[in-house]
Amino acid sequence: MRKVLFLCMTLLLAFPVTAFAADEPTNAMLQIAIDSVWVMIAAILVIFMQAGFALLEAGSTRMKNAGHVAGKTILTFGICALAFWAFGFGLTFGDGGAWNKLIGFGGFFYDGTAEQAAAAYPSLAGSDVPGSIKFLFQTAFVGVALSIAWGGFAERAKLSVYFIFGLLFTVVIYPFVAHWIWGGGWLADHGKQDFAGSTVVHLQGATAALAATLLLKPRLGKYNKDGKPNLIPGHNQVLSVLGVIILWIGWFGFNPGSTLSAFNDGFFGFIAMNTNLAAAAGGVAALLVSWLYFGKADIPSMLNGVLAALVAITASCAFVEPWAAFVIGLVAGTLTFFTAQWFEKAGVDDPVFAFSVHGIAGVWGSLSTGFFAAPRLVEMTGVGKEGLFYGGGFHQLGVQAMGVAVSFVFVFVLAYAILWVMKKTMGLRVTEEEEIMGLDISEHGSYGYPEQLKKSGNETVAL
Amino acid sequence: MRKVLFLCMTLLLAFPVTAFAADEPTNAMLQIAIDSVWVMIAAILVIFMQAGFALLEAGSTRMKNAGHVAGKTILTFGICALAFWAFGFGLTFGDGGAWNKLIGFGGFFYDGTAEQAAAAYPSLAGSDVPGSIKFLFQTAFVGVALSIAWGGFAERAKLSVYFIFGLLFTVVIYPFVAHWIWGGGWLADHGKQDFAGSTVVHLQGATAALAATLLLKPRLGKYNKDGKPNLIPGHNQVLSVLGVIILWIGWFGFNPGSTLSAFNDGFFGFIAMNTNLAAAAGGVAALLVSWLYFGKADIPSMLNGVLAALVAITASCAFVEPWAAFVIGLVAGTLTFFTAQWFEKAGVDDPVFAFSVHGIAGVWGSLSTGFFAAPRLVEMTGVGKEGLFYGGGFHQLGVQAMGVAVSFVFVFVLAYAILWVMKKTMGLRVTEEEEIMGLDISEHGSYGYPEQLKKSGNETVAL
Amino acid sequence: MRKVLFLCMTLLLAFPVTAFAADEPTNAMLQIAIDSVWVMIAAILVIFMQAGFALLEAGSTRMKNAGHVAGKTILTFGICALAFWAFGFGLTFGDGGAWNKLIGFGGFFYDGTAEQAAAAYPSLAGSDVPGSIKFLFQTAFVGVALSIAWGGFAERAKLSVYFIFGLLFTVVIYPFVAHWIWGGGWLADHGKQDFAGSTVVHLQGATAALAATLLLKPRLGKYNKDGKPNLIPGHNQVLSVLGVIILWIGWFGFNPGSTLSAFNDGFFGFIAMNTNLAAAAGGVAALLVSWLYFGKADIPSMLNGVLAALVAITASCAFVEPWAAFVIGLVAGTLTFFTAQWFEKAGVDDPVFAFSVHGIAGVWGSLSTGFFAAPRLVEMTGVGKEGLFYGGGFHQLGVQAMGVAVSFVFVFVLAYAILWVMKKTMGLRVTEEEEIMGLDISEHGSYGYPEQLKKSGNETVAL
Repeated sequence: MRKVLFLCMTLLLAFPVTAFAADEPTNAMLQIAIDSVWVMIAAILVIFMQAGFALLEAGSTRMKNAGHVAGKTILTFGICALAFWAFGFGLTFGDGGAWNKLIGFGGFFYDGTAEQAAAAYPSLAGSDVPGSIKFLFQTAFVGVALSIAWGGFAERAKLSVYFIFGLLFTVVIYPFVAHWIWGGGWLADHGKQDFAGSTVVHLQGATAALAATLLLKPRLGKYNKDGKPNLIPGHNQVLSVLGVIILWIGWFGFNPGSTLSAFNDGFFGFIAMNTNLAAAAGGVAALLVSWLYFGKADIPSMLNGVLAALVAITASCAFVEPWAAFVIGLVAGTLTFFTAQWFEKAGVDDPVFAFSVHGIAGVWGSLSTGFFAAPRLVEMTGVGKEGLFYGGGFHQLGVQAMGVAVSFVFVFVLAYAILWVMKKTMGLRVTEEEEIMGLDISEHGSYGYPEQLKKSGNETVAL
Repeated sequence: MRKVLFLCMTLLLAFPVTAFAADEPTNAMLQIAIDSVWVMIAAILVIFMQAGFALLEAGSTRMKNAGHVAGKTILTFGICALAFWAFGFGLTFGDGGAWNKLIGFGGFFYDGTAEQAAAAYPSLAGSDVPGSIKFLFQTAFVGVALSIAWGGFAERAKLSVYFIFGLLFTVVIYPFVAHWIWGGGWLADHGKQDFAGSTVVHLQGATAALAATLLLKPRLGKYNKDGKPNLIPGHNQVLSVLGVIILWIGWFGFNPGSTLSAFNDGFFGFIAMNTNLAAAAGGVAALLVSWLYFGKADIPSMLNGVLAALVAITASCAFVEPWAAFVIGLVAGTLTFFTAQWFEKAGVDDPVFAFSVHGIAGVWGSLSTGFFAAPRLVEMTGVGKEGLFYGGGFHQLGVQAMGVAVSFVFVFVLAYAILWVMKKTMGLRVTEEEEIMGLDISEHGSYGYPEQLKKSGNETVAL
Repeated sequence: MRKVLFLCMTLLLAFPVTAFAADEPTNAMLQIAIDSVWVMIAAILVIFMQAGFALLEAGSTRMKNAGHVAGKTILTFGICALAFWAFGFGLTFGDGGAWNKLIGFGGFFYDGTAEQAAAAYPSLAGSDVPGSIKFLFQTAFVGVALSIAWGGFAERAKLSVYFIFGLLFTVVIYPFVAHWIWGGGWLADHGKQDFAGSTVVHLQGATAALAATLLLKPRLGKYNKDGKPNLIPGHNQVLSVLGVIILWIGWFGFNPGSTLSAFNDGFFGFIAMNTNLAAAAGGVAALLVSWLYFGKADIPSMLNGVLAALVAITASCAFVEPWAAFVIGLVAGTLTFFTAQWFEKAGVDDPVFAFSVHGIAGVWGSLSTGFFAAPRLVEMTGVGKEGLFYGGGFHQLGVQAMGVAVSFVFVFVLAYAILWVMKKTMGLRVTEEEEIMGLDISEHGSYGYPEQLKKSGNETVAL
């Protein structure tokens, strides 16, 4: 393209060392470019996970809500991306001065330059990746945390709730724990191992989902008068399967991308290998467990098993050997199956099992390094200590447990309080009539599948 | 792989400097390899946009046409890829000699070698990326322009029209404007700012769509006798949402890939950041506007808002600051909503609003640098001058307006003339009976959803 | 991220040469990092092909089996990934000692380290890409071979068959031919040209599919009493189209990624260009042929034409000129159309035409280098000799034919024997009643589309 030629030629004159024709780039510049490409791709993969969440959640809910469920994913990612740019990024990675152990402050409305990145976000200075790419990568992460939270709102929350809670989650909730662990806050000082965010991203999102599901109450028809749960099957398993494969693929950005580097003898490849083994083990385990438990090999359970394993390996992928990744995935897939059953029986209607998949597995993944962290990998990453099974005793397990417990309690209390105030003021839930006719009509005025649904009285039924 | 080992070893002997074991690559070779990987990935992302268009267009139309709409995307990308290889690429980037300000000529049937690239395409010589990868990237771009055009043909054009117009668009229409702006033609001399193709790709495709929709006339049942439009809702919003997320992702190849480089302190990351902010702003703005206007938060409007913002930021992404990207996206989302309403009321039945989304937003995006182009970015890219809001006066705005106006008029006249001749000779539209039964049956002989549709009289209805 | 900063800082102290701040990486380290990023992305693209297969196969079969068909893709990729890690990788690439011409042995349960990679897999030593990334890339390949095989099992095999045959294919079948050609076995010694696996991946998978479809017998209702075949249309062409676009995209990892390098003047780009031209030619050719043959432009035939061309160019992409890639794709698309018709008429019910698409086109693609291999590319890759059309005589054609014939016979006999034993012991096929109600219910206990299907007697019908 001519414009690009102009660009290149201009740069050739202006900054001779960066141009390809005259003088060659230095090795440091080459390294920055390689790391930039890798983290850029990782950011794109993590943003692509929004498609995975949209499909998984839409496929796991009913036809009358499908347009709403899928569409709100784009809306809330938009809100989140803007709010994180304006305030969230500066609160998470800005310099909080005297309050820095608690929260960051500064660098709002990031202008994309290296200058502001260097001045405003000291906790990001350790990587050579340009600030704009780091920003995009972090935007992708908070977007995932928020998408996880929506699982608990599904099929009954008002659209306005997505607007307002999406904004508040991005600005008021997420920056705290993210700052504590990744932004130079107090938890980082304890050597907490959370490589790519089992706690920061998954447990936070899942905890907000739990608060929402408790305050929203179960969907109509989910429980009989005697408290027994009914199955409300999702309308399209093919879309759910596609969603899970996209999420699996996205995780190759999520975990290996968190190295922020393509160097260190393929360490990002090692992490990708661990991630894949865990996911495979989690899916196979959950399918087998469901086969034994139900007498039928349940596909939604298998999909949750894959995701639970991916969530669990997120914290531990850089600290454990492949055999341990296999075990962590296996346990995650199994644990999520049983806790999902348990929550459902206990009266918690979490339509896509967000708390079991991202919360319970997030806790297990965070704790798992306390058992499996290998000395050679602890030494290599320089974070924390080896786990119980390598003679490290209970130290790291304790650190991990503390991090998980504090993060859970903080997010739960804050999310519950915000949602409680919203419930008392604007209301969280659509009316019974609206819920019966479906949120596509009630919140958006048109069906997502207009040729396949019709209104029969107040109710929407498949043709 | 053994074959690859053989390859590597042979190369080791043949060209010692390129092999990894004996002698090391030079820094220039490393730079080429990094840029190659980045542009290759960008090309793959842009080709992936075909999936986005197939899903968006299929989801936004009716079940009886879904197989046709999705399937023709693959067919026409195939035709386009072959025709661009044979003729289009040489007409766009070849050396037109005395006619070079108007059109290129030469380098047909590109053989993929560095030798032919260097000899035949002088306007591409400014980048170090290998010719085969540049060719793939450009193929992806013309494929997008053509997919945009199809929006105006949807649900009533004959399959043979897609064949013939696809061929002619690739060889006769696209190369002119693309050559003028990116191939060394007369518009490039004026310093027109069109970084990744708001004019070249989006406005061209949208203008062809407009010509088609005017000549094809509205779909049966779209307008009442009094001229009032009826809503013909798309059959599957979940597929439309997935399509838009894929397009959003693909745009991270479209815009940042147009740097053709991963150097310059992460400039491609800066462009990605601008692209994401604009898309987010456009989607949120369009949803809010539709909420105010219709009283319901309309999902298709939001999806169009996202795309319009992406189209608008395509020209401007390299020239504006993040806050301006936000504003450009906001305006694009709003503008597209109102112009889509206006065209529909004015009797133009553009089934997926191709002209509003890609045309109006393409014009707005092209003009926007006339307002927002920042001095530091103009200096960095070396293209054109700063915008009105930075004290640049009306100069750049005038250049942008001229480029847009000339490109629109040229493409509209040429596309209209070609389609008019086709209409008079072979005919553009299926018969009424065929349109009622749907193009899946009429053009392909089988339903895209055979278990969900049945024929009732001449009409196809959902079961 | 703070943890990553810790990592970086620790590495800075521990291994100064790898850190970005103090000392710069050497050019060899930069080259490794670039190749690592490229092959990592290629591996991700090839794993993404699982989504393509899930959608293509689900879209091409009936609603009552859709959840099963899509879901089992995830299950079997999980089984395959674990089994390949445990045994398959070591059998394919390990050192077989005295038996090495026949099979590898060693390096089971790969631990992800460079040390084990160097010690255990001598045939992978020629590339500088880290072992963990090579492992991931190879896992993706065997996953594709297995997904191809499943085409022959569709809509009638029991879920337990997928478990057991998936395991055995990965461990007992695939490692042999893969070792012969890519692991240092006897076929490599003959200079067989199979750049990215037309034989190793596609023909192997397709041959297993053929064995399965012969032993499973046709689906109920496929053939009338007089032997005439009935059309059993797939339920969703939009999903099939999406699947094919994803596969097309994935092939940009499959073929260009098989260079294992981003150097050599963009050779990976040249391969991508050839791949794209072939795919385009195959799709257009198959559509036109179906139009002439049926009188209707058949979309499933076009989709198979795209895939057949991609399969054919897989072996030849590195050895032929772009014009030859065009011809190879054209022939593949045409050939697959007619052989698919022939097999169907001959009583072989291969629901997604796996043997025609991956087998016949795999044979054609493998043979095609015997005709089209260009001297300059043979010299560059260093594998085999030029083809018949370049004056190379019948030598290379003979080598290619031998490789194809031996691989086909070996895999067919082994797969047939394994499946025959399974048929006699556990049984391969669900009962007639289960087949009529659909595998979603029979194998998993719930419909994939619960709102669109109901049970009517024993039969599942669309609502």
